[in-house]
Amino acid sequence: MTKTRELAHMIPSYADAALIYSQVNRKYFTGFVSSLGYLLITKHDTYLFVDFRYAEAARAVAKNCKVIQFGKFTESLKEVIRSENLHVIMLEGSSFTLNMLSSLDETFKLCGVSTIKTDELDKIISRMRAIKSDEEIKMMQRAADLTEEALKETLKRIEVGVSERDLALFMEMYMRKNGAKGVAFDLIIISGKKTSMPHGVPDDKKIERGDLITLDIGADIDGYKSDMTRTVAFGEISDYQAKVYNVVRNAQQAALNKIRDGVACGEVDKAARDIINAAGFEGCFGHATGHGVGLDIHETPSLSPDSSYRLASGMVVTSEPGIYLDNEFGVRIEDMVLVTENGCKNFNSFTKELLILGE
Amino acid sequence: MTKTRELAHMIPSYADAALIYSQVNRKYFTGFVSSLGYLLITKHDTYLFVDFRYAEAARAVAKNCKVIQFGKFTESLKEVIRSENLHVIMLEGSSFTLNMLSSLDETFKLCGVSTIKTDELDKIISRMRAIKSDEEIKMMQRAADLTEEALKETLKRIEVGVSERDLALFMEMYMRKNGAKGVAFDLIIISGKKTSMPHGVPDDKKIERGDLITLDIGADIDGYKSDMTRTVAFGEISDYQAKVYNVVRNAQQAALNKIRDGVACGEVDKAARDIINAAGFEGCFGHATGHGVGLDIHETPSLSPDSSYRLASGMVVTSEPGIYLDNEFGVRIEDMVLVTENGCKNFNSFTKELLILGE
Repeated sequence: MTKTRELAHMIPSYADAALIYSQVNRKYFTGFVSSLGYLLITKHDTYLFVDFRYAEAARAVAKNCKVIQFGKFTESLKEVIRSENLHVIMLEGSSFTLNMLSSLDETFKLCGVSTIKTDELDKIISRMRAIKSDEEIKMMQRAADLTEEALKETLKRIEVGVSERDLALFMEMYMRKNGAKGVAFDLIIISGKKTSMPHGVPDDKKIERGDLITLDIGADIDGYKSDMTRTVAFGEISDYQAKVYNVVRNAQQAALNKIRDGVACGEVDKAARDIINAAGFEGCFGHATGHGVGLDIHETPSLSPDSSYRLASGMVVTSEPGIYLDNEFGVRIEDMVLVTENGCKNFNSFTKELLILGE
Repeated sequence: MTKTRELAHMIPSYADAALIYSQVNRKYFTGFVSSLGYLLITKHDTYLFVDFRYAEAARAVAKNCKVIQFGKFTESLKEVIRSENLHVIMLEGSSFTLNMLSSLDETFKLCGVSTIKTDELDKIISRMRAIKSDEEIKMMQRAADLTEEALKETLKRIEVGVSERDLALFMEMYMRKNGAKGVAFDLIIISGKKTSMPHGVPDDKKIERGDLITLDIGADIDGYKSDMTRTVAFGEISDYQAKVYNVVRNAQQAALNKIRDGVACGEVDKAARDIINAAGFEGCFGHATGHGVGLDIHETPSLSPDSSYRLASGMVVTSEPGIYLDNEFGVRIEDMVLVTENGCKNFNSFTKELLILGE
C-alpha cells in the first residue's frame, strides 16, 4: 500500500480528509520537494497542489497523486472540496500558521467545511514516519556511510593549530562534493573544555595536544539524515579522561544491547543512565539517550526517561549517552541503529576504541 | 528610541502587548538569536523568554529587555500577564502555528486574556523592518562587499569542464571562510540553456564555450543578507545574446534611475518593464523588478506591477529585471541599493559591462 493510502486508512471516521502543508511531509508522502505546496489526502484520492513553477516536475515525480496547478490555491481547493464532497478536514497543526488559517477560513465557510485544528494529524503522521521502509533505510545507510568516510578524511586533518571551524567546513564540503544534499544538522566539532557543552558550536578555537575532540556529525542524502558521534583524543590524555571515555562506551553499549522490538524507550535510557550513575557521574548526563531519525534529525520516538513510546521493528534510533564535566571536558559516543525483532542493526561501523591521534 | 519601544508605540489602543515567536523578529528586536524563545513587548516593558540553554547568553546580548528563564513557558508567561495586568495580546500570525496556539489557549483563558490572531502585528513589524538603521546598512554593505570579493575569485575559476556545482560550492566556502555566517540563499550559478530559468539550480552541468553564465549570489553577515546578480559570457557569444544583455542592462539602469523616496514601487517596475517590452521581449520577464532585503532575503516592499507600496528613505531594495528565452538562454542583472531622498546609493560596484571570460 502506498503511504498516502496508509494515511487515508488512519483518518478517523469523523473526518473526510487530511490537509498537509509542511515540506517534509509532502516529501514523505509524494517524493516531491518544493518550497510551496499543499497535499490533500482524502479517503479515496490524493491531490498535490503546486504553482506553475513546480507543476511539470511534480507530475514527473509524484506518481501517486493528482497534481493540480493552482493560480490561487483557495480556488483550486474549493473545486476539490466540492467534487469530493468533503465536510470535515484535519489540518496539520504543526505547520498551519494563524495567517494561513485566516486566508483559508472563508473558503472553508463557503464550502461548509469544518476543520480539526489539533495535533491529531501530526501524531498519526509521526507514528507512520517512525517505521522506515526498505527504501528509506537504504538512503539512511548511504548517509551513514558517507559520514564515516568524511570522518576518516577529517581525522587525517587534525593537527596542532587547525581550528574547529576549519574541520567542520572541510567535513561539510567533503560530504557535499560526494553526493550529500548537505549536512544533516550544523556539524558539532568541538575540542578541549568546550566538549563539556553537549551542543557547542565550532569556532576559531584551535586544536591543542591533550584535547578530547567530539565530532557529532551527519549527512543528508535526498532528505534522509544520518547521525553519529565519536570522541577522539589528540595527544596524550589523562587516566581520568580515559576512565570517563570507558564509562560512556559501556553505557552506550548497554543501551544498544537493550534495543529490540517491543522494549519501552525509557528502559533503553535507563540501561545507559544506570551505568553512568553507578560510576559516580549522576547529574552529568543531561539529555536523553537517543531519538528517532529520518527525514528530520529528531523524530519519534524519544529515548528519554519519561518516554511513552515502545520500540518497534523498522524504527531507526540513536544511542548517544554522554558525560559532561563543567569546565573540564565531555565525552559522547553515538550510533544510529535499525530496530529489529531480536535486537538492532547498526548503521555505523566506525571503531569505538578510544583513538589517540597525533602520536 | 529602541526598536522595542518603537513597536510598543505602534501597538493599537485596543491591545496591551505583542507576542513574537519568529527567530528573525526576536533577532531584530533584541539582537539575540536562539532556536527557541518568545518575546513579549508591552506598552511599558519587554520580556524575552528563553530556556536554560540560552539564559546566560541572552542576558549578555539582549540588553534592552528583561530575560526570563523558563522551565515551562506557559507558567512564566502567566506570571508576566498577571504582573503587567494584560488583557489583549496580539500574536505574530505568521509564526504561531495551530499547535502552538492550542498549547497557550488554556493559559490565556485562565488569565482572562483575549488574543488578536490576524496578520496585523506582522504588517506593523514588516513596515518597521523595511526602514534600515545605520548599523543594519553597515552589515549589509559588509555582506555586499564580501559577495563581490567572492564573485571575483569565483570568476577566475571558470574554465571548460568546471561544473556549476563546483563553482557554487567554491563561492560558498569562500564566503564562509571570510566571515559570512553562510550564504544569503542557495546560490544560483547556472549556465547555457539553464539561464532561461530564473531560479535554476546549480548541478553537474559543465561550463562550455559560448555559454552565458548567471550568478545570483549573496552572503549572510550576522543575519543580514546581500543580493546581486551578474550574467557573464564564457567565450564568444552571438550578437543576439549581446543584444539581449544590453536590453536588460538598460532596463536595470532605468529602474535604478527611478528609485527615490516617495516613488510608487509599481513605477520602478514599469520603468524596467517598458524597456523590455519595447525591445520586443514582452512576456519574457515573468517576475517582479525587485524586493526589499534585510534579515530576510525577501522583505517589504515588493517592486512589482501591482505593489501597493511607496519607496521611503532607508529602505534597501533590489533592481533585477531579466529576459528569459525558453530553451535558449536568459540574462539577469541585479544590484542592491539604499533608497535616499534624491535617488539611491548602490551597495554594488562590480561592473555591469558584459564580461567575456576565457578569451
